[in-house]
Amino acid sequence: MPSSCLSMESRAGLAATPGALPYYVAFSQLLGLTVVAMTGAWLGLYRGGIAWEGALQFNVHPLCMVIGLIFLQGDALLVYRVFRNEAKRTTKVLHGLLHVFAFIIALVGVVAVFDYHRKKGYADLYSLHSWCGILVCILFFVQWLVGFSFFLFPGASFSLRGRYRPQHVFFGATIFLLSVGTALLGLKEALLFKLGAKYSTFGAEGVLANVLGLLLVGFGVIVLYILTHSEWKRPPQAEEQALSMDFKTLTEGDSPSSQ
Amino acid sequence: MPSSCLSMESRAGLAATPGALPYYVAFSQLLGLTVVAMTGAWLGLYRGGIAWEGALQFNVHPLCMVIGLIFLQGDALLVYRVFRNEAKRTTKVLHGLLHVFAFIIALVGVVAVFDYHRKKGYADLYSLHSWCGILVCILFFVQWLVGFSFFLFPGASFSLRGRYRPQHVFFGATIFLLSVGTALLGLKEALLFKLGAKYSTFGAEGVLANVLGLLLVGFGVIVLYILTHSEWKRPPQAEEQALSMDFKTLTEGDSPSSQ
Repeated sequence: MPSSCLSMESRAGLAATPGALPYYVAFSQLLGLTVVAMTGAWLGLYRGGIAWEGALQFNVHPLCMVIGLIFLQGDALLVYRVFRNEAKRTTKVLHGLLHVFAFIIALVGVVAVFDYHRKKGYADLYSLHSWCGILVCILFFVQWLVGFSFFLFPGASFSLRGRYRPQHVFFGATIFLLSVGTALLGLKEALLFKLGAKYSTFGAEGVLANVLGLLLVGFGVIVLYILTHSEWKRPPQAEEQALSMDFKTLTEGDSPSSQ
Repeated sequence: MPSSCLSMESRAGLAATPGALPYYVAFSQLLGLTVVAMTGAWLGLYRGGIAWEGALQFNVHPLCMVIGLIFLQGDALLVYRVFRNEAKRTTKVLHGLLHVFAFIIALVGVVAVFDYHRKKGYADLYSLHSWCGILVCILFFVQWLVGFSFFLFPGASFSLRGRYRPQHVFFGATIFLLSVGTALLGLKEALLFKLGAKYSTFGAEGVLANVLGLLLVGFGVIVLYILTHSEWKRPPQAEEQALSMDFKTLTEGDSPSSQ
């Protein structure tokens, strides 16, 4: 009975994708890929490229962090807006998996910079960039573990999930924005360490890196916009509404079979 | 008739402040004031203090930006959560005025750094910090003008206000967060320019500035949390509900006097 409550019209209404959403998503992907490509171009053109051995090992760090904690993390947040009509569980698994990929790639980036520092004899974790970076990694890991326990592990109750969901969304967006801020600090650090006073001569590397910084900000803003736009929130699917009705009936001690 | 629709209970319900909100607001103010005090302490202890003439003119910049674009702008966003039971118009005027104060103080900070650069013969607007800063100032000014025209100037229609409101809230939060990010970039720049390689020795100034950076992040996060917490949103007041009902009646061509 519960699923038959939804008429064909309301089912069609639930399935409709808001007109402007695909354009915003496409623009976000264009911006995200430009950020990744531009980070690669900056490292290739002005920093000698990438390698695991030698002085170029440092360059693994910015590229991995931008791919993992900016692009993939951003896309992981958009999963519920893009796959509006897939089963909730499929979308959840994709959301969790994208975060796993993001974390693995970011971990390679973190190992690269610690390994580079160790070989060069540089001090670790003295800068604001590194403090924010470690904070992001810890929060990301905790958020993933708690999210997994509540939403993918079958133990958590329906009402517990409902109460935790807004916190999960808020802290997810916060960790993503903190990642963008940390990337900006890292970019600035890399520029000032190498260019020093030459930064003020409007040289090509400085200008390219500044534009990269603004594009990073732009990607952060558009992901946040898509995420928070209330009309673009994922509507509950027919089967979820039915499930929630069944659940309500069950918890109110009035199961369908008792009638 | 419309205002009498609301019973005494529901009026009392609207007036109730959510239990945890005052603690979060108090904590945000403690954090915000600590950020301002710590910026002052950093400039006083390690940068020789503040003056409009000479080398100390630069120090006017960080202090004014932190007071204006971080503390006052953050508080301006919280006005609708703190003054939940004042008339909407009073709250709007306070929100607009706090932004005016924030802008004037920030303007003094901007003039200080340009004047300092001019006297020293330094280049302007070459760094990512300055690009983000100019972006923040332009967006802040445009947002204020558009906000004033829609919400305080009597011309805009009810439905136009309703459609613009979510955009205003989103961009207000975005400009505030971009201000926090720009402050972090500026802090990092000031540290690297002065300390250089000494930054990695965990000296007192570096550690103090890193802690200040984390507190800036913390203030940004708590303001965003209070702002986005759905249960803490400002409930419509009795007279606003009445007004909106009158308006609805009028637009539906069924004015109260016609009955």
